[in-house]
Amino acid sequence: MESQNEQAAGATPSDTIHADIYDEDGVMRASFLAQVGAAIADRDTLTLKRYVDDLHQSELGDLLEALQPDQRHALVELLGTDFDFSALTEVDDTIRAEIVDSLPNEQIAQAVQELDSDDAVYILEDLDEDDQNEILSQLPFTERIRLRRSLDYPEETAGRRMQTEFVAVPPFWTIGQTIDYMREDNNLPDRFSQIFVIDPSFKLLGAIDLDQILRTKRGTKVEEVMHETRHAIPATMDQEEAAREFEQYDLLSAAVVDENERLVGVLTIDDVVDVIQQEAEEDLMRMGGVGDEELSDTVLATSRSRVPWLLVNLFTAFLAASVIGLFDRTIEHIVALAVLMPIVAGMGGNAASQTMTVTVRALATKDLDIYNAWRIIRREMGVGSINGIVFAILIGAVAALWFHDANLGGIIAAAMIINMFVAAVAGILIPLLLDRLHVDPAVASAVFVTTVTDVVGFFAFLGLATWWFGVP
Amino acid sequence: MESQNEQAAGATPSDTIHADIYDEDGVMRASFLAQVGAAIADRDTLTLKRYVDDLHQSELGDLLEALQPDQRHALVELLGTDFDFSALTEVDDTIRAEIVDSLPNEQIAQAVQELDSDDAVYILEDLDEDDQNEILSQLPFTERIRLRRSLDYPEETAGRRMQTEFVAVPPFWTIGQTIDYMREDNNLPDRFSQIFVIDPSFKLLGAIDLDQILRTKRGTKVEEVMHETRHAIPATMDQEEAAREFEQYDLLSAAVVDENERLVGVLTIDDVVDVIQQEAEEDLMRMGGVGDEELSDTVLATSRSRVPWLLVNLFTAFLAASVIGLFDRTIEHIVALAVLMPIVAGMGGNAASQTMTVTVRALATKDLDIYNAWRIIRREMGVGSINGIVFAILIGAVAALWFHDANLGGIIAAAMIINMFVAAVAGILIPLLLDRLHVDPAVASAVFVTTVTDVVGFFAFLGLATWWFGVP
Repeated sequence: MESQNEQAAGATPSDTIHADIYDEDGVMRASFLAQVGAAIADRDTLTLKRYVDDLHQSELGDLLEALQPDQRHALVELLGTDFDFSALTEVDDTIRAEIVDSLPNEQIAQAVQELDSDDAVYILEDLDEDDQNEILSQLPFTERIRLRRSLDYPEETAGRRMQTEFVAVPPFWTIGQTIDYMREDNNLPDRFSQIFVIDPSFKLLGAIDLDQILRTKRGTKVEEVMHETRHAIPATMDQEEAAREFEQYDLLSAAVVDENERLVGVLTIDDVVDVIQQEAEEDLMRMGGVGDEELSDTVLATSRSRVPWLLVNLFTAFLAASVIGLFDRTIEHIVALAVLMPIVAGMGGNAASQTMTVTVRALATKDLDIYNAWRIIRREMGVGSINGIVFAILIGAVAALWFHDANLGGIIAAAMIINMFVAAVAGILIPLLLDRLHVDPAVASAVFVTTVTDVVGFFAFLGLATWWFGVP
Repeated sequence: MESQNEQAAGATPSDTIHADIYDEDGVMRASFLAQVGAAIADRDTLTLKRYVDDLHQSELGDLLEALQPDQRHALVELLGTDFDFSALTEVDDTIRAEIVDSLPNEQIAQAVQELDSDDAVYILEDLDEDDQNEILSQLPFTERIRLRRSLDYPEETAGRRMQTEFVAVPPFWTIGQTIDYMREDNNLPDRFSQIFVIDPSFKLLGAIDLDQILRTKRGTKVEEVMHETRHAIPATMDQEEAAREFEQYDLLSAAVVDENERLVGVLTIDDVVDVIQQEAEEDLMRMGGVGDEELSDTVLATSRSRVPWLLVNLFTAFLAASVIGLFDRTIEHIVALAVLMPIVAGMGGNAASQTMTVTVRALATKDLDIYNAWRIIRREMGVGSINGIVFAILIGAVAALWFHDANLGGIIAAAMIINMFVAAVAGILIPLLLDRLHVDPAVASAVFVTTVTDVVGFFAFLGLATWWFGVP
C-alpha cells in the first residue's frame, strides 16, 4: 500500500512540472527562463542539467526558442552529449540551422545515432550535401543505409517522413512467439502501435494492432489474426495525401512500402499531425499573401519574400485605377462619385472574399467536388443576389441622404447589386477554375477575385453615373 | 505456403476497393454512385448491402454526401439495422440532422448502443433535449449514465469528446494477469493504445502503453512499469487546449479525469485530429469573414450569416468615404487624385494583411509570445519601411509619368511610405492587442486593420496633395 500511495502522490505533482515552466496562457514563465539563464551565465552545468533533464523534447524546444541566441549556443555547448537533439525537431527552421551549423559534424553524427530515424532525417535534410555526406559517413553501415534511403525520397513525401524502425514478423509465427520475441529484442522502436507481417523478401502481407495481440491466445498463428493492410502508403506519396489517408481512416500508423510493395518504414500519427497543421497553416498563409516565412526570419528576408505578392497586387491596383481614369471627366463634374466609389469596390471585395474563403477551404478538404459544385455555385449566386439587394438599399439610402440626390442613390444601388452578384460568381468560379488547372487556389484566388470586384465595381458605378447624368 | 500466398494476394487488391470508389483526385466515382443509385431505385436491398458492407464509415459518409437527399433517406431506410450509424459522424451537420430527424427515436436508441460512446455523443448532442431524453431513457442503465455524463460536460470540452470505454487495472496486478484479463474480457473498447491504472475509488494512478506491456515479463507488477500520467486531461478542459497537449507531447491517447482526479474517460488522437482540423479551419474562415457555415446550408441561412460581417465593413467603408469627402474640393481640381487614391489605400491593405496573417497564425500556434513580440514588432516595422520605400519609388515613378507631373509622383510616394509603415504597425499591434483583450484576433483584426489602412491611405495622400498644391 505504501508504494501505491507514493505512486498516487506522484501522479499529480508531475503536472506541476508543466505548471512550473508555463503560465496559464501556455507561455514559458519568466522565472524559469531567468533560472536557466543564470545557470548558463554561471556555466553551472550541474544546475542546468537539473533544470533540463525532466523536460520533454518539445519543452526543451520551447526553452531554446525563448532564450537569446548566445544563451542557446551556451546551453547546447554546456550540455554536450546530454543535449537531447530531438528538441531540434521542435524549434523553427532558422534556429535549428543556427544551432546545427555551429556544431562540429562529429558531434552531430554521434547525436543522430541516438535519434529515431525520422527525427534524424528531419535534422539532416536541411544541411548542405557535403555536411550530410560527412555525417552519414561516420555512422554505422545499417544506420547509414536507412537514413540515406529516407533522404533519397523527395521532400514532403511519406518516405522522407517515415520511421525506419519497426517490428515485423513472419506469418507462420504464433502470437506467443511474437510476444516472446518482443520481450527479448532490445532493438525495438521507442513506441509502436502495430506490428507488420512480411514474407522472406520483406513484402508486406498484413499488420496486427497491439490491442489485437493482447486479446489473442498465445497459440494462435499471426496469419490468422492479421488484417490486410488496406492503407499501405507508397514511399513516394505526397505527405499531404498520406495525411488525408490517416484522417479518413483514423489510422495511428501505416506501413510505408517501396515500388515493389516491400516494407521500408512506418508513418506515425504524430508526424501526420504536424503535416496537417502545416498544410492548414499553408492555406491560411497563402490566402494572406505570405509564403513559408518563419518568425525568426530577418527583416530583409521577410521583406523580399513579401514583395512578389505586393507587386502582383500593384499591377491590379493600376488596372483598377485606369478604369477610374476612363471616367475622369465625370468625376470632375460630380465629386461625390469619387467619395462613394471605394464603397462599391470594397463591399464587392469583402463579399467575394467570403465566398472565396469557403470555396478554397472546401476544395482543400475535398468537401467540394463535381457532385455539389453546381449546387454551391447556384447557392452563392443566390446569396450574392440577396445580399446585393440588401446592401444596395442600405447604401443607396445613405448616399441619397448624404448628397441630397436620389439619382445618385439609385445609381450606387444598381452598381452594388451588379458588383455583389459578380463578386459571388468570381468568388466561387475563380478558385474552382484554378483548382481544375492544378494551380493552388489558396495562392492565386485573392488577386484575381479582387481585381474583378475592383474593376467591375468602379466600372459599373462610374459607367452608370456617366450614362445617367449624361456627362460627355 | 498456400495460405500465405492467398494473404499476400489479398493484401494489395483491397486497395482497389478504394480505387473502385474514388478517382485519382479523391472524388467519388460517378460509376459507383450510379450503381448505388440504381440499387436504391430498384429497392434492391441485397445488392445495396453488397456495395455498402465493405465501406469504411468515412467512405459511407462520403457516399451519403454525394447522394441526393431522397436517395439518402431511401438508403438509410433500406439498410435498416445494417446501416452503420458511425458514418453519421463523418457527414456535415445539416445532412446528419436531416437523417437523424427523419428516423424514429427507437431506431436511434438501438443504433446508438452499437456505437462507441464518443460517436454516440456526437450524434446525440445536436438533437433537441426532448428527443435526447427520450432516446436516453430507452438505453440500458450504465450506457445511459455514461452518455448523460458526457453530455453534461459543456460543448467543445474534453468531457464531450472523450470515449467512456477504457481498460483499467489495479496497480498490484501482474502484467500476466493483465494480459489474461484482456484475452477473456469481451467488453473491451474497439481500439486502444494504453491501459490505465486506478485505485479502488477510480482515482488515476498511472498508465501503461501497450508496447510497454508487450516488452515486459509476465511476472512484473503493473505498478513497477506504469508511468505517471503527466498529461491527464480535466474533463472540463477546452478541446482546443487538449489538442495542444496532444500535439506538444505526441500523445496517442490521454486519460480524462473529473474534478476529483477520477478516471472518467479517454481522449484519443483521432478525435483530436478532427479538433485540430476544425480549429485551423475556424481561423481561416474567421479571417475570411465567414462563420460556422456548412456547404449544405441554404441560401437564406448563408446569406443571413454573412450579413453581420458585411455590415461592419460597410460602416468602415463609409468612414473611409467620409475621409475622402473632406477633400472633395481638392479632387475637383485634380481628378488624378481620385484615380490614384485607391492604389495607396489598397497597397496598404495588402501589406497589412500579410503582417496580420503571420501574426494571427503565430498567436494561434503560440509561437508569438512576450519573449519575441517586441522583436517581431521591430521586424515588421523594418519590413514595412523597406517595402514602403520600394513601392513608393515604383508607384511614384509610374504616377509621375502617367500624369506628367513630378509633384504628384512625389506626393503619392510619400503617402505610400506613410501608409505601408502604418500598415505594418497596425497589422501586428491590432491582433496582439485583441489577443491581450481576449478577443479572437482571427475574427476582428481584418476590419480594424483595413479601416486603418483605408483612412490613413486616403488621408495621407489627399492631405499631402491639398497641402502641397495649396487647394483651399
